[in-house]
Amino acid sequence: MAKPKPSFMDTIVSLCKRRGFVFQASEIYGGIGNTYDYGPLGVELLRRVREAWWNGVVVERSDVVGLDSAIIQNPKVWEVSGHVGGFSDPMVDCKKCKGRFRADKLEDAKCPEKPSKQPGQCDGELTEPRSFNLMFKTNVGPVEGSGSVAYLRPETAQGIFLNFLNVMNAGRLKPPFGIAQIGKSFRNEITPGNFVFRTREFEQAEMEFFVPPADYAQWFDHWKNARYEWYKQYGIDPAKLRLRDHEEDELAHYADRCGDVEYEYPFGWGELEGIAGRTDYDLKHHSEGSGTDLVYFDPQTKEKYTPFVIEPAGGINRMALTFLIDAYEEEQLEKDTRVVLHFHPEIAPITVGVFPLVKKDGMPEKAREIEGELRRARMATFYDEKGAIGRRYRRQDEVGTPFCVTVDGDTLSDGVVTVRERDSMEQTTVKVADLRAYLEGAMRTWKRPERVAPAGA
Amino acid sequence: MAKPKPSFMDTIVSLCKRRGFVFQASEIYGGIGNTYDYGPLGVELLRRVREAWWNGVVVERSDVVGLDSAIIQNPKVWEVSGHVGGFSDPMVDCKKCKGRFRADKLEDAKCPEKPSKQPGQCDGELTEPRSFNLMFKTNVGPVEGSGSVAYLRPETAQGIFLNFLNVMNAGRLKPPFGIAQIGKSFRNEITPGNFVFRTREFEQAEMEFFVPPADYAQWFDHWKNARYEWYKQYGIDPAKLRLRDHEEDELAHYADRCGDVEYEYPFGWGELEGIAGRTDYDLKHHSEGSGTDLVYFDPQTKEKYTPFVIEPAGGINRMALTFLIDAYEEEQLEKDTRVVLHFHPEIAPITVGVFPLVKKDGMPEKAREIEGELRRARMATFYDEKGAIGRRYRRQDEVGTPFCVTVDGDTLSDGVVTVRERDSMEQTTVKVADLRAYLEGAMRTWKRPERVAPAGA
Repeated sequence: MAKPKPSFMDTIVSLCKRRGFVFQASEIYGGIGNTYDYGPLGVELLRRVREAWWNGVVVERSDVVGLDSAIIQNPKVWEVSGHVGGFSDPMVDCKKCKGRFRADKLEDAKCPEKPSKQPGQCDGELTEPRSFNLMFKTNVGPVEGSGSVAYLRPETAQGIFLNFLNVMNAGRLKPPFGIAQIGKSFRNEITPGNFVFRTREFEQAEMEFFVPPADYAQWFDHWKNARYEWYKQYGIDPAKLRLRDHEEDELAHYADRCGDVEYEYPFGWGELEGIAGRTDYDLKHHSEGSGTDLVYFDPQTKEKYTPFVIEPAGGINRMALTFLIDAYEEEQLEKDTRVVLHFHPEIAPITVGVFPLVKKDGMPEKAREIEGELRRARMATFYDEKGAIGRRYRRQDEVGTPFCVTVDGDTLSDGVVTVRERDSMEQTTVKVADLRAYLEGAMRTWKRPERVAPAGA
Repeated sequence: MAKPKPSFMDTIVSLCKRRGFVFQASEIYGGIGNTYDYGPLGVELLRRVREAWWNGVVVERSDVVGLDSAIIQNPKVWEVSGHVGGFSDPMVDCKKCKGRFRADKLEDAKCPEKPSKQPGQCDGELTEPRSFNLMFKTNVGPVEGSGSVAYLRPETAQGIFLNFLNVMNAGRLKPPFGIAQIGKSFRNEITPGNFVFRTREFEQAEMEFFVPPADYAQWFDHWKNARYEWYKQYGIDPAKLRLRDHEEDELAHYADRCGDVEYEYPFGWGELEGIAGRTDYDLKHHSEGSGTDLVYFDPQTKEKYTPFVIEPAGGINRMALTFLIDAYEEEQLEKDTRVVLHFHPEIAPITVGVFPLVKKDGMPEKAREIEGELRRARMATFYDEKGAIGRRYRRQDEVGTPFCVTVDGDTLSDGVVTVRERDSMEQTTVKVADLRAYLEGAMRTWKRPERVAPAGA
């Protein structure tokens, strides 16, 4: 019997492990539910995604600044934000097997004793649903007990609201302005899943944009479009992207509007990034809760108001997964199939592979020298001298390296190398002296190639 | 009576808050012990330090790769690593006031009821010392209880040992090679302090370098020197840096040798980074604990061994504090004193200030245009048109911006701007067309200026 073809997600997971993008966390100890570690290529992918987000949201704009707030804040923060009271899922317990399940996702759950049935469909009687808070709890200081309870933040946003006045005053800012943050958030999800799409621990990228109330609607539209365009700019297939406005009954307690950038994943359309209109909900609540007036006050005009807030919020891990999935292609060539990741050059973990054509005649030394020069100029390089040259190209295709440089006899005699481009597989002769400028130019002018959908997608 | 001069650390803390480097976390809720948030300049400083570390340890080398492992791993990891059993401080309780104190630091503690005395010197009787684990505990999954206990990692190193085989195999690596990681670690310290020098939550930068046992001593020396040189390379005063080898009785349970890069802080010499020889302790323990053989095996030569490990480990926050302290100078000029941070240009949060000389005659528009071009080339810029030009220079000196560009009448007529260098305060006329190349060149050729020690240091 033929081995069944793996699903597209299985193919991605397998590539991720084999080439060092993503490993199961604590794998040698049997893992820990839905937690992942990022290997050498994964960590570089995350770094590129983080940098691209920060460039698009902070560096390239003159109206947004950054912040890095602590994960464990004063617990009062989460009472006032509504998370202690309201950030929860309804759970039911099975009185027979003692399992606990999400009451609103029972159809996805399996009875631990009879996996063909849902909990409650076998003998076990289910309790009434009770709410189960999604925040991870811990204790700070030497004494365990209610007095020392603290939470791991479930979102980075609150750290921004807490620092609204400090940031505005230190930077002499005036709305409209934004404060952006990237950092770990934690949610004790009962049903995480789909590889790194939803994990208990994830890296959030959020920006709170503070505006005069009158300009709220217009800035909301601005950010929805800006964030949608960012994904296209970094090469995501526009045919798999859409903007979807939330229905009234989908909105979180703090939001009066929300638009999602959605992507068509192998498991269906899913949220890639949410752009929420948080009104003045958070600043007002923290003003009341803390006794500190979180308002903008103009000393000249005596104008005073609580800004309204627009929040683009996404996950760096989910973005990275999306770039991976979207870049993947099994391309049918004349004689065979090649696996290639068509990453945007600024997203690709490795920018340049450097190879000696053969392992003799001084080529390895020359290739190492060229690789070292690019590396010291802080290009992400990879030196490879193992196996046939065609096979080395393919190994780099599989991890999305946009350029490979081959050192051959002409390099030693005429000072030229061959640059092979990943998407077109075209080869160009370039002078060693011009190599860096050539590669930088090719990075800038890269265009997403037209291509067929990946197998299984 | 004259106001007493603030201590040097008070001056740094005050500058950090006023200019947006570091704020007290949850300040509007009265804070949370020794926890800090990084404002717009602080987050950029952290980003630069992180990048400089990653460049020095990963990007510029061909023998080190990166990793990003989860904060919450399988709890078994911390049993095997020795942290559940041994990562603790001895604590005593006062039977009268119920306070808890570090038994080995009683002389630094204050009796909560009679703050002029130490605990135990007043009426209260102290219990025998008991060990108090420094790891933060939490529960994962829907059920609280011993079965779901997990820990926030107290060091990033273990995540590297867990992934040793996966990383080695995916990257086809052979010792000597290193795996580096930057990420948050958490220690429930009872006596944190000295601003961001020691905090409960901190960003660790660690690298585990795996070597054949025979090459252990030589690689240990290599890394001690490489890390010491890195600080000098980024402009830290060599007179305030030293390498100090640990005495036998200072060594952690996993180490057989350790050298610290120490810095002379305002509060005395302190550890800036530790380079530890961890032998084969961790790989051996995890091999036994997990049943997975964490060894290097060469399929050709059939050579098989457990690598020895050298670990440079530091904190990004502490490095950032050190760069801040070391860069600070109150420079006596002819007529007044200027506060200036002499940051290395790659460490400075802002690279270029851009100013119109006056707010008229098209100068603001031209300055904004130049600032926008530099910004889109991803230079960290700051536009300022408020106040006298001299005052604007001083405001940038105080946050360590190495270059300021002023747009004046000559810019509009002749296409030239004035570039003012922070350390020398020298001004140079540069063509707008050459500005970016000029700034990049000046960044590369920057040298740490000779200077007197800062007041109070």
